[in-house]
Amino acid sequence: MPSENYNIGCYLIDRLSEVGVKHLFGVPGDYNLRFLDDVEAAENMEWVGCCNELNAAYAADGYSRCRRIGALLTTYGVGELSAVNGVAGSFAEMNPVIHVVGGPAYKDQQNFSMMHHSLGDGNFHHFANMSEQISCAVAILRPLHYARDIDRVIQEVLYQSRPGYILLPLDVAVLPAEPPLTPLVRRVREYSEESCRLFAAAIEERLKNTKRVSAVVGYQCDRFQCHKEAQALVDDAHIPFAHMLLGKGTLCEQSPNYLGCYYGANTPDDVRNCIEQAETILLIGVRFHDFGTGYFTHSLEVSRRVEIKPDSVTIGTVHYQQVPMAKALEIVHQVATKYSSNWPKNTIVPHQIAQPTSDKYSAYHFWREIQEGLKPDDIIVVDQGTSSAASAGLVLPKGGKHIVQCMWGSIGFSIPAAFGAQVAEPNRRVVLVVGDGSAQMTAQEWGSFLRYGLRSTVFLVNNDGYVIERVIHGWNAVYNDIGHWNWIPLIKALSADFQPDTHLIKEAGSTKAIMDKSDKSDKLVFSEVILGRHEIPVVNLSWKPN
Amino acid sequence: MPSENYNIGCYLIDRLSEVGVKHLFGVPGDYNLRFLDDVEAAENMEWVGCCNELNAAYAADGYSRCRRIGALLTTYGVGELSAVNGVAGSFAEMNPVIHVVGGPAYKDQQNFSMMHHSLGDGNFHHFANMSEQISCAVAILRPLHYARDIDRVIQEVLYQSRPGYILLPLDVAVLPAEPPLTPLVRRVREYSEESCRLFAAAIEERLKNTKRVSAVVGYQCDRFQCHKEAQALVDDAHIPFAHMLLGKGTLCEQSPNYLGCYYGANTPDDVRNCIEQAETILLIGVRFHDFGTGYFTHSLEVSRRVEIKPDSVTIGTVHYQQVPMAKALEIVHQVATKYSSNWPKNTIVPHQIAQPTSDKYSAYHFWREIQEGLKPDDIIVVDQGTSSAASAGLVLPKGGKHIVQCMWGSIGFSIPAAFGAQVAEPNRRVVLVVGDGSAQMTAQEWGSFLRYGLRSTVFLVNNDGYVIERVIHGWNAVYNDIGHWNWIPLIKALSADFQPDTHLIKEAGSTKAIMDKSDKSDKLVFSEVILGRHEIPVVNLSWKPN
Repeated sequence: MPSENYNIGCYLIDRLSEVGVKHLFGVPGDYNLRFLDDVEAAENMEWVGCCNELNAAYAADGYSRCRRIGALLTTYGVGELSAVNGVAGSFAEMNPVIHVVGGPAYKDQQNFSMMHHSLGDGNFHHFANMSEQISCAVAILRPLHYARDIDRVIQEVLYQSRPGYILLPLDVAVLPAEPPLTPLVRRVREYSEESCRLFAAAIEERLKNTKRVSAVVGYQCDRFQCHKEAQALVDDAHIPFAHMLLGKGTLCEQSPNYLGCYYGANTPDDVRNCIEQAETILLIGVRFHDFGTGYFTHSLEVSRRVEIKPDSVTIGTVHYQQVPMAKALEIVHQVATKYSSNWPKNTIVPHQIAQPTSDKYSAYHFWREIQEGLKPDDIIVVDQGTSSAASAGLVLPKGGKHIVQCMWGSIGFSIPAAFGAQVAEPNRRVVLVVGDGSAQMTAQEWGSFLRYGLRSTVFLVNNDGYVIERVIHGWNAVYNDIGHWNWIPLIKALSADFQPDTHLIKEAGSTKAIMDKSDKSDKLVFSEVILGRHEIPVVNLSWKPN
Repeated sequence: MPSENYNIGCYLIDRLSEVGVKHLFGVPGDYNLRFLDDVEAAENMEWVGCCNELNAAYAADGYSRCRRIGALLTTYGVGELSAVNGVAGSFAEMNPVIHVVGGPAYKDQQNFSMMHHSLGDGNFHHFANMSEQISCAVAILRPLHYARDIDRVIQEVLYQSRPGYILLPLDVAVLPAEPPLTPLVRRVREYSEESCRLFAAAIEERLKNTKRVSAVVGYQCDRFQCHKEAQALVDDAHIPFAHMLLGKGTLCEQSPNYLGCYYGANTPDDVRNCIEQAETILLIGVRFHDFGTGYFTHSLEVSRRVEIKPDSVTIGTVHYQQVPMAKALEIVHQVATKYSSNWPKNTIVPHQIAQPTSDKYSAYHFWREIQEGLKPDDIIVVDQGTSSAASAGLVLPKGGKHIVQCMWGSIGFSIPAAFGAQVAEPNRRVVLVVGDGSAQMTAQEWGSFLRYGLRSTVFLVNNDGYVIERVIHGWNAVYNDIGHWNWIPLIKALSADFQPDTHLIKEAGSTKAIMDKSDKSDKLVFSEVILGRHEIPVVNLSWKPN
């Protein structure tokens, strides 16, 4: 960028770009328009306008799950608050997203002016206070110290793998600035040689007396980018492993050691026994939440556990601090491969989604055909509910990725998240499965797939309402009903410029046929899948109320 | 309700109903399903399912603007955070809305369990902390003191005319309770006889020497329900008055004393002079914000001002506390009518929206026809932007109501707000005008008009982007573009059960023809109005960046 026009907004763009943000999702608003001039002019940043801010936040989250960093731009008050549910999801599920908010002029803030998009009380910190609850770092930019504040937020976002918040007043954005002189300093993880030595000795003592080892892999292994180390461990020491639903796809599911998903008491018996009855159970980046464990029905004796967390390890009840996950995995790998020749080879094949029990077209047909149609490097995005439950039964292809927001669990997430993922990965096929209740939340963002010419494969499961809620409570309750839409005309109406390929699926074979060829399509491929309103989840994760 | 099943949820429903909430907007979620059983069973409450929670919050706001109270129900975390932008708008513009959030079981909260829809850190107060910034009262219900907590929140909401927040854990909702024994005690406004006496003496001294009086009426006059007192004052003392845009329609605009809107330097000269040059300017429930004043270009000498606020009055710089607005208006009425025979009669006729300057169909044609087609008791809802600006130039019919969110200014508000208003007022015609950029934010809620069989009259202004942003900054900028939709097929796709009447408007006369007859339609009447992408606002409110 020409140095003469270089301003604080440019500095922010350059730092975002430096850490991997190449696309900025959001909605224009009059407090961010001048900054958007700089975004538009920047060669290292692309603006991706979304229909609304919640959708932009979901898109940035989906992007971040692919590129390990994402960002969104909103306007003060109205825009940023529309986005907070999406950002909170990024916080809960540890996706690094930087939320930049264009704010009222610094001078208006200093004057306590009654500006639009404010609460009208002259206090301009309310919304930063709100975002503080869902951010690992917050900066309200002022004319001074802009570089320190911007750098600090981005550093923390990368270190903690959580969202950060930057309020950029419109007059601050255009103040002259200097480009970064040096690359952003990255925080290194805390590391204690002493602690690692003690851990290594303890794990050696443990593993040399162990006859059977199992592993469960969770989302933190992905978020802290230790999938390579973990993969090497399970491969080289042939350790049978399962994924938690949140974290599914972190390791290769085509591995001979892959067992399937682990979700507590309803896990198929052989998988469950293999995990739970091992003398040493490696928990790699796992946290146990209600939905991922059949409401805490997991049964993993503490004395058998070796918990490998982002910055520490626990063996049984003994805690080793300052042992970063990558280092811990390296230590376990070194020790495990010494003893693994004595450990039994895995004989379990992951369970397939059950065969349909009747000829009537059902979710079982649909999901088995999704499974059969997945191809290497596909990214499958599923919404929370019967879709996410079913996806626990999929075995991903080589290089496959799975995106689900099953801890935060905000329905409607999947449409914009798939959009963000497809922007991040234009050369991979994104396959989206979303129910009608969820889709009504965020359906307009399908228009953005068409607007930007993205070629995703979308399955809208029309099952007449919030079916997962019916399963939980209110099997026939009116409050679990939704309005009936005409989905195929709807998707066509969402663009006057580009038309999708559309399909109506009511019978066996159709899904497979679409999956077989949609990777070669140059259009959005949209299918409405007609299923009954009382279709139960094809994988039983024990979605019961508590 | 049968006393044997009466629980805390029932108590909440009864109190809400008692203060005027007859419809509960929202989205089901597994933390509020059991409470929804009680809502479904209740004879004094109707559930209105919306497509998403932001829309539900906007709908509750629109409902509240009509019924003076509204409520929405969301689920913990994901639901409530989606709604906060709407609730913040209710806070900023002083609309009493009660936000009920179904929460995780009290026992899970006490156990710090890692529940879905939480941040996963065992702290269940994050979102209440967030909502505290935009609520006048917050309660996290526990097994004890439920009545005290529920009553306190509702009392404060009514007293302050701001939103309140109630977190209702799912196991608390179903605990046995006793129905209210007595009606809800209402907080009375603070009142000082001494202060009123001093104010009466001062206003007498002031008005007896005043040759010309003017009045400006703002939203607080409406919010604190003093429109009758204010109307009597301007009628009986024939005081020429203007509305602020936020507050428009509070008094009858068919009054011979009505001047039009006052919005600072760009107000038509005769109106502006009539207001600004009066020796005494009554400001009735007015607050000056940037958009409502042409960026603070109002010129109202402090020494001429008598500011009548919800709980106090200021003459010049002298402040009289503990004088409620209704009492203040009564005092001014008493004094003004003593002297008003000496004051000149108003001769100004409110300015009409300007004549089109060319034959090419333009916003001028459209808005003049809206004006001509308005009928008594119509409720006109306009989105923020060129629509809200134009609406400043309308003169409302007798009994007409104007809904705009021009201080908070969240685009997309108008569709769900119109839905809420139409639910509140099924026998009045709701006329909605919304631009395409705004509509893309919340378009799905049109499906709810069809689902619930509402008969509103909708004008979608297709002007190819965020035109108000083009006016402010970025006349041709790509970031002010949006995706092109096919709007009429879209609205048709939003219901498989009911079809709207649809029209495409490209020429003079069409809008008037629709307005003339749509009040008799038994269907949603939807029109797409084609205007140019560089159509400037037909009323210039000085939308400039600062």
